Amino acid sequence: MHVKIVEVGPRDGLQNEKEIVPTEVKIALIEKLAASGLTTIEATSFVNPRWIPQLADAEEVLARLPRGKDVTYTALVPNLRGLERAVSSGLQEIALFMSASQTHNQKNINKTIEETFPVLREVAQAAHSYGMRVRGYVSTVFGCPYEGDVPVDNSRRVTQALLEMGVHEISLGDTIGVATPKQVRHIFGELVKEASAERLAAHFHDTRGTGLANVVAALDVGIRIFDSSIGGLGGCPYAPGAAGNISTEDLVYLLHGMDIDTGVDLERLMEAGAYIQQQLGRELPSKVLKAHLAADDCAKQGDA
Amino acid sequence: MHVKIVEVGPRDGLQNEKEIVPTEVKIALIEKLAASGLTTIEATSFVNPRWIPQLADAEEVLARLPRGKDVTYTALVPNLRGLERAVSSGLQEIALFMSASQTHNQKNINKTIEETFPVLREVAQAAHSYGMRVRGYVSTVFGCPYEGDVPVDNSRRVTQALLEMGVHEISLGDTIGVATPKQVRHIFGELVKEASAERLAAHFHDTRGTGLANVVAALDVGIRIFDSSIGGLGGCPYAPGAAGNISTEDLVYLLHGMDIDTGVDLERLMEAGAYIQQQLGRELPSKVLKAHLAADDCAKQGDA
Repeated sequence: MHVKIVEVGPRDGLQNEKEIVPTEVKIALIEKLAASGLTTIEATSFVNPRWIPQLADAEEVLARLPRGKDVTYTALVPNLRGLERAVSSGLQEIALFMSASQTHNQKNINKTIEETFPVLREVAQAAHSYGMRVRGYVSTVFGCPYEGDVPVDNSRRVTQALLEMGVHEISLGDTIGVATPKQVRHIFGELVKEASAERLAAHFHDTRGTGLANVVAALDVGIRIFDSSIGGLGGCPYAPGAAGNISTEDLVYLLHGMDIDTGVDLERLMEAGAYIQQQLGRELPSKVLKAHLAADDCAKQGDA
Repeated sequence: MHVKIVEVGPRDGLQNEKEIVPTEVKIALIEKLAASGLTTIEATSFVNPRWIPQLADAEEVLARLPRGKDVTYTALVPNLRGLERAVSSGLQEIALFMSASQTHNQKNINKTIEETFPVLREVAQAAHSYGMRVRGYVSTVFGCPYEGDVPVDNSRRVTQALLEMGVHEISLGDTIGVATPKQVRHIFGELVKEASAERLAAHFHDTRGTGLANVVAALDVGIRIFDSSIGGLGGCPYAPGAAGNISTEDLVYLLHGMDIDTGVDLERLMEAGAYIQQQLGRELPSKVLKAHLAADDCAKQGDA
């Protein structure tokens, strides 16, 4: 069995960093991620730099990244202005985003769900006319910080609308990290009736420690594409302890341990994790990285 | 569905703390754990205090704990001397321990597996003659820091021997936290052929982030008893970053999210976690506790 990993650390992870990360560090990180065997890397975002100053260097990052046939770089695009920047940067894939819950969509995009559809449709059409592939993110599928439970019908409706726009892949997100495996099996089980499993990705956060358990639940219902972030980068600048995206190292360790192929070399991946941890100067959430960097194995010291 | 949680934080967790935790803090912690609805709490250890000075106050802790019919206190017992101390303390349940791998058993207990059996048999017989219940721990079932893979036949043999000694429950441990769900399904799937599922418990460590995924895998093959540690206390004093036992808060969050009853009140449980975190003066691994203590929810701050 093969699983495709979409690495979102350079975008979803770094966008939450308060201190501006130097462009050359971003480039070195992305190069190390590509060298580990990751084939899809969300490198940056074309959201207005006023909102996310951390990623204001999107054009420079993409211009300086070596391009090869082995890796696809992608970026978040909110509107036609963002799409033009993505086209100028030579991207062949972009990602659109919206929420399954009305309130989160309103607060995040400043539009209702209904008002968001035509904007995304316009961007998707234009992107397709440039020959680009378009990915769709749906946030708050498993719970909303304002509304609590989100009916699966909401996610079904947004999924259908994105499919009609011709997106090749839809990533369903547990934005606030509240999902548990039973819910994951239920919601993905329903949504694979709308889109084939090959077009659905799972985007889990590990805020409450259930991230990898949710991965296994999604595998059980046929999902084979997972988003993750190197080191578990992400979290929230306003809640220092809270974890964000599941860590790519932990995900790869889990999958390889289950005899599932990812094409990723875990040793080289951990070099990327160790690099960005050192550059950021603080311990990242990845447990595999922690265990790897710990000089001695605990049980070798007489622990029972 | 009901799951029984065996709280091991006061013993398996605190034994790794370098600074001696005051006896009154241990007692307050255990009282808060009992108040949350936990019904089985491993409160301390009767291992020689020369080896684990942190738990030298075992008698005092047990003497000062209020006893009621709602909670069972238990303690680790390595030999007849330890058993005498447990009897004097009025315990009605004890736990024995050994390893599935020869090298780990040798380093941890200073005996071969074969030499360990008669010692444990003697203690179990004596304990039963006092009317006590006896639990058995098997370490390194999913991997050994010295030998790597541990054949399931090793664990089968140790499980059979413990059953013959009349233990009521056997806890199978992933001591170094290397297990993944496929392996968990395989090994527990084999061992439920030896002992009925009701007599087997899973003792997972979250060293590589797979702890809760392994819980779900064990649930899938019928396991209904799980060991965990408040706050995720445990880890290793020699590897500060490495996580230890799965956190009780995270386990309860997972199980309740899957509509599985535990009898535990998560809010009150988190009070116990917050208390011991404050007493130890450092952030504990539990992600549910972190998310709970984070003042603001990340997604309320405009995160996508």
